[in-house]
Amino acid sequence: MRYLPGKAQQLPGNRSQLGDYQASHFLFEVRGRVATLTLNRPERKNPLTFDSYAELRDLFRALAYADDIKAIVITGAGENFCSGGDVHDIIGPLTELDMPGLLAFTRMTGDLVKAMRACPQPVIAAVDGVCAGAGAILSLAADLRYGTARSKTAFLFTRVGLAGCDMGACALLPRVIGQGRAAELLYTGRSMSGIEAERWGYFNSLHEPQDLLAAAQAMALGLAEGPTFAHGMTKKMLQQEWNMGVDEAIEAEAQAQAICMATNDFHRAYHAFVAKQRPAFEGD
Amino acid sequence: MRYLPGKAQQLPGNRSQLGDYQASHFLFEVRGRVATLTLNRPERKNPLTFDSYAELRDLFRALAYADDIKAIVITGAGENFCSGGDVHDIIGPLTELDMPGLLAFTRMTGDLVKAMRACPQPVIAAVDGVCAGAGAILSLAADLRYGTARSKTAFLFTRVGLAGCDMGACALLPRVIGQGRAAELLYTGRSMSGIEAERWGYFNSLHEPQDLLAAAQAMALGLAEGPTFAHGMTKKMLQQEWNMGVDEAIEAEAQAQAICMATNDFHRAYHAFVAKQRPAFEGD
Amino acid sequence: MRYLPGKAQQLPGNRSQLGDYQASHFLFEVRGRVATLTLNRPERKNPLTFDSYAELRDLFRALAYADDIKAIVITGAGENFCSGGDVHDIIGPLTELDMPGLLAFTRMTGDLVKAMRACPQPVIAAVDGVCAGAGAILSLAADLRYGTARSKTAFLFTRVGLAGCDMGACALLPRVIGQGRAAELLYTGRSMSGIEAERWGYFNSLHEPQDLLAAAQAMALGLAEGPTFAHGMTKKMLQQEWNMGVDEAIEAEAQAQAICMATNDFHRAYHAFVAKQRPAFEGD
Repeated sequence: MRYLPGKAQQLPGNRSQLGDYQASHFLFEVRGRVATLTLNRPERKNPLTFDSYAELRDLFRALAYADDIKAIVITGAGENFCSGGDVHDIIGPLTELDMPGLLAFTRMTGDLVKAMRACPQPVIAAVDGVCAGAGAILSLAADLRYGTARSKTAFLFTRVGLAGCDMGACALLPRVIGQGRAAELLYTGRSMSGIEAERWGYFNSLHEPQDLLAAAQAMALGLAEGPTFAHGMTKKMLQQEWNMGVDEAIEAEAQAQAICMATNDFHRAYHAFVAKQRPAFEGD
Repeated sequence: MRYLPGKAQQLPGNRSQLGDYQASHFLFEVRGRVATLTLNRPERKNPLTFDSYAELRDLFRALAYADDIKAIVITGAGENFCSGGDVHDIIGPLTELDMPGLLAFTRMTGDLVKAMRACPQPVIAAVDGVCAGAGAILSLAADLRYGTARSKTAFLFTRVGLAGCDMGACALLPRVIGQGRAAELLYTGRSMSGIEAERWGYFNSLHEPQDLLAAAQAMALGLAEGPTFAHGMTKKMLQQEWNMGVDEAIEAEAQAQAICMATNDFHRAYHAFVAKQRPAFEGD
Repeated sequence: MRYLPGKAQQLPGNRSQLGDYQASHFLFEVRGRVATLTLNRPERKNPLTFDSYAELRDLFRALAYADDIKAIVITGAGENFCSGGDVHDIIGPLTELDMPGLLAFTRMTGDLVKAMRACPQPVIAAVDGVCAGAGAILSLAADLRYGTARSKTAFLFTRVGLAGCDMGACALLPRVIGQGRAAELLYTGRSMSGIEAERWGYFNSLHEPQDLLAAAQAMALGLAEGPTFAHGMTKKMLQQEWNMGVDEAIEAEAQAQAICMATNDFHRAYHAFVAKQRPAFEGD
């Protein structure tokens, strides 16, 4: 292997371990190389607060350097995903802020989405029950989404007098479900049912509530056992090519894939194929 | 309210009233704050002419400043939406024009779409029967589309020897129904059935012909009773973020939503919630 | 006709004939103005090799100037489309290359997609059986895709330790089937069934295996008999507007369509309409 990932991993500050991270405002458990992040105020359908926003943002930023975690599941406790920004804890205080304060808040929430899109681990949302407001954005910012038929995903900013453009929704949602369907959800704040979500490409698949988390974790485990360096490149390029021209995207992929061809995992896959074995990827 | 929308509304030229606008080449009726624009040459399936194009363009430009209209329904009389540019009134004369004349025409029709996308009011198309050529573009340029199963939407420019790139179709249609389906419709000019249109995300929903207009107007009324300043921001950002990168879009939304958090409607929603009442939005 | 296409066609180097092209690494047959390109190593499910990649790239580049071919069908022999880069012929040698060699390879494969998107002829993929890896990209790079229910389309780069960003996949696939579905296929490498492919907008329609090629050729013939100069403009603008803003795309289309209004085909269509005849397009 010519490009020295071993040395790069030893650069100070360039790698970290999050397997023993103790979260303050949600649950964070690591099994193998899969982290499961559970929003955990089930009695209120797992709302977000200033503190949980900030901790989520900081955690996803740290995950960019966490070498021991290769895929992330995000879910909610108690048969709901997330009810979004808490009215009392967030909306009320926001009505008291001046403009710099408001912008500091909207930038913090936006930074959470940026961090979810910037970390190399695929993020898989497991969505049951209520998935509303900023909670809907958390699911939208994931790479893959599994849901239940009974789930209700609502971008309900309009219901509190705000615009649908929150944390990247007007950019992300149209590319997932199409411009016309996204416009309806963002203008009206109505719930998208689980059936609609699967039909429109929002959910990758539907599951029974009792099977949902296991399905998401199985997918995460499968990805974590794969060529994780290459997965991180897939995620990076899905983001990077968002508004490139086609020819520029092709050149960008020529470079990105050439990098991946210089990894050990590519060699491992070839030698396993020749030996009629299943490759054991190591993510370097 | 700290940002003085009251004064801004009084700036000369910054606001206007269109509730009593008398249209020359179509019907324009305003009930409450919802305008219904009806193409009205039913004996010819509501074709467009040079004059109706120009009046539509000018009206949508004026709507950008019309403070008394908060949502717009566009439909056609007599069980058809619009047959597009009239062959005798438009295609024939076009064959006589020199290049500057041709470009003046294609820019005028493009300006109509630009104006539809630039006014802050959501535009809801109610599509029955024939929806063809430039008529199909009018429906595509709307924010939401309601249709009937029997409707036929055809981007039939190829049938008159032209390209599918007309009035923004090659940009807009792929984002609504996907690149592959858009390519088929634009290359072949074939009709998309109402069933296909709903399935592909072109129509937001299907309705019986006798219920179609009422459904579109009910949606328009619901939006007009909502936080209309925020709706205008949603529309603006869906356009503004069209070809931004994800991170840039998130910053753009942080700013846009901070602006909306400084509106009275956001405060109204919070206080109504605390009082367990339904908010009465006023659009400022 | 004022813009002298006749003279332009006579410019040296500006037009060529490929009707009698003898391909070395696949079949290339021209009937009328429709070329059918058949990947033809059926005993190995039509893999690609360094040589076939290069010849495909060169052929599609030459097609940009081929005036005698107006539509292209691409398919595979023996009930499979294409198994992608051959493990022994391609993957093995790649593991021996240095970085400049790797980049030369990924750029060559990317150049094939660029050439397919740059030639003015619509490309129609007829996909049965296995459609995998670079083979899946070939179908993705087409303008229209016809498939069979039993077909299996897999972007399986991850299975050989690579990223999903290959030959433009992270740019193209999300626009065809949506960002969430594309992410799943690219991260996992799993097969998309023919049923899914039609439902998601990847295939324009499904056909029985024995009818597939004829359906693709019939579509190609229909396009070849149409206003082919305008078709080429449709294709160009679908590419050109990929990452333009909406208003810029509308201006670009105003110019492109004005060019098409100066063609003979536009005049032919009008005069045929007036004479109640079917227009005979000639592509100029």
